[in-house]
Amino acid sequence: MTRGYVIPIGGAEEKVRDAKILERFVRLCGGREGRIVVIPTASRLEDTGQRYEEIFNKLGARNVTVMNITERSECSDPAYLEAMQQANGVFMTGGNQLRLSTTLGGTPLTELMRERNFNDGLHVAGTSAGASILSEHMIAYGDEGPTPSSHKVTLAPGMGLMPWAIVDQHFRQRDRLGRLLSALAYNPRLVGLGLDEDTAAVYGPDGILRVAGSGSITVVDASEVEFTSMDSASRYDPVTVIGVRLHCLTEDATYDTNTRIARPPSKLLKSISS
Amino acid sequence: MTRGYVIPIGGAEEKVRDAKILERFVRLCGGREGRIVVIPTASRLEDTGQRYEEIFNKLGARNVTVMNITERSECSDPAYLEAMQQANGVFMTGGNQLRLSTTLGGTPLTELMRERNFNDGLHVAGTSAGASILSEHMIAYGDEGPTPSSHKVTLAPGMGLMPWAIVDQHFRQRDRLGRLLSALAYNPRLVGLGLDEDTAAVYGPDGILRVAGSGSITVVDASEVEFTSMDSASRYDPVTVIGVRLHCLTEDATYDTNTRIARPPSKLLKSISS
Repeated sequence: MTRGYVIPIGGAEEKVRDAKILERFVRLCGGREGRIVVIPTASRLEDTGQRYEEIFNKLGARNVTVMNITERSECSDPAYLEAMQQANGVFMTGGNQLRLSTTLGGTPLTELMRERNFNDGLHVAGTSAGASILSEHMIAYGDEGPTPSSHKVTLAPGMGLMPWAIVDQHFRQRDRLGRLLSALAYNPRLVGLGLDEDTAAVYGPDGILRVAGSGSITVVDASEVEFTSMDSASRYDPVTVIGVRLHCLTEDATYDTNTRIARPPSKLLKSISS
Repeated sequence: MTRGYVIPIGGAEEKVRDAKILERFVRLCGGREGRIVVIPTASRLEDTGQRYEEIFNKLGARNVTVMNITERSECSDPAYLEAMQQANGVFMTGGNQLRLSTTLGGTPLTELMRERNFNDGLHVAGTSAGASILSEHMIAYGDEGPTPSSHKVTLAPGMGLMPWAIVDQHFRQRDRLGRLLSALAYNPRLVGLGLDEDTAAVYGPDGILRVAGSGSITVVDASEVEFTSMDSASRYDPVTVIGVRLHCLTEDATYDTNTRIARPPSKLLKSISS
């Protein structure tokens, strides 16, 4: 009964030179001998799966299975279920997160992935749309801009591998703080994770999340929020939110989801000479 | 480690003569000696809590505590936490479910209620808005009509006491099948429960839900859905959904959430003489 890692990536991760995030995922899955499943369902491009297969091969992984799933019925295919049962890691590509949820949601393949991630050490990573769907409450779409407002964001059920979080991606590049704040303003019990491109939240079985990659993760902790006006806001009205805690974390910084405490990367700690 | 009951009610339940649903709740909580907490936060009317206190008193419950909570800070009040710790049952009134989620979500009082419902036998009932918030994925608002479409429904995080369900209420009276189907079309892993007025889903620790009251419960099981077009639909476009299973259940009919099997009320079973 071991949880696997969950690794949402903010999109546009380095794939060729200095592919640190993908390299780390391959290593986590067992490297050369690790069995990796690629699910390119979010994408409309035919070669997305094959492209990731080649990338993972170049990073040393020899056992890569691409599941080019476009129909819900394929998610009961015994060969796919067997591959999921044997896998060490799953990687979901970018595209449209609603393509993932409408095609994979509630199917035997997804239930097996979820079950094995919670209880059997299966690691699950996803980039862009593949990151969004890891939340229980998934951002399906929304508008740009830094401040929250009513009707700015549309939530849908995701895969629930990080039930305490709402994950957003391309965060700095697409100016998404406002839509993440809007999502949290509905019910301040969750933590928002805004992932920049080429940046991953490496969330371990111990409940500690570690930043990897070249950008930032914006942690938006709503647990101390004193007030939100989302219940009385009219359509497109700005929304009051008081008491958000916000952390901007860079590589090797950590966030403990058990205690909700953020810590700087140890290499940046200011030491005091005794 | 016993779960308590969870009892969403579709609104407008009989309160004076023949108040079967409320009477059943009082009995479940221990009757005369049972300790009931009323949370009228969803309502804008000042006397909603007092009104329910009088109703529960008339039904025989002597220990009723009304928590007139309007601010998040009140949800850390030691007296309220103590009352929640001692309670046998909680009743959340109707009004606006976003008032409930924005005021109570993620607070110590709600976390305690949730924890005791899952592990310490606390029963939780809610009517109308108080029913909606029992879902993990709560319908915040939406449009009327029988068919699903894009942007027809807005979801927000609820309290998660029925993580497998999306609860809707005033179901027949406000023509809400379309918005419930829209919610399920995002991700067909959940079960929709459409509750008519004066009708309750009495969901027990064994995972079996039993209908009580004068109307119907429409169970919308999306687990066999073969296709939904929610990912490609433009704003307000109608959405294709293929393969929904639908049950209309009346008093004493049951739905087993473990097996997803519905059974008619035993009194209506057609017996075969041998």
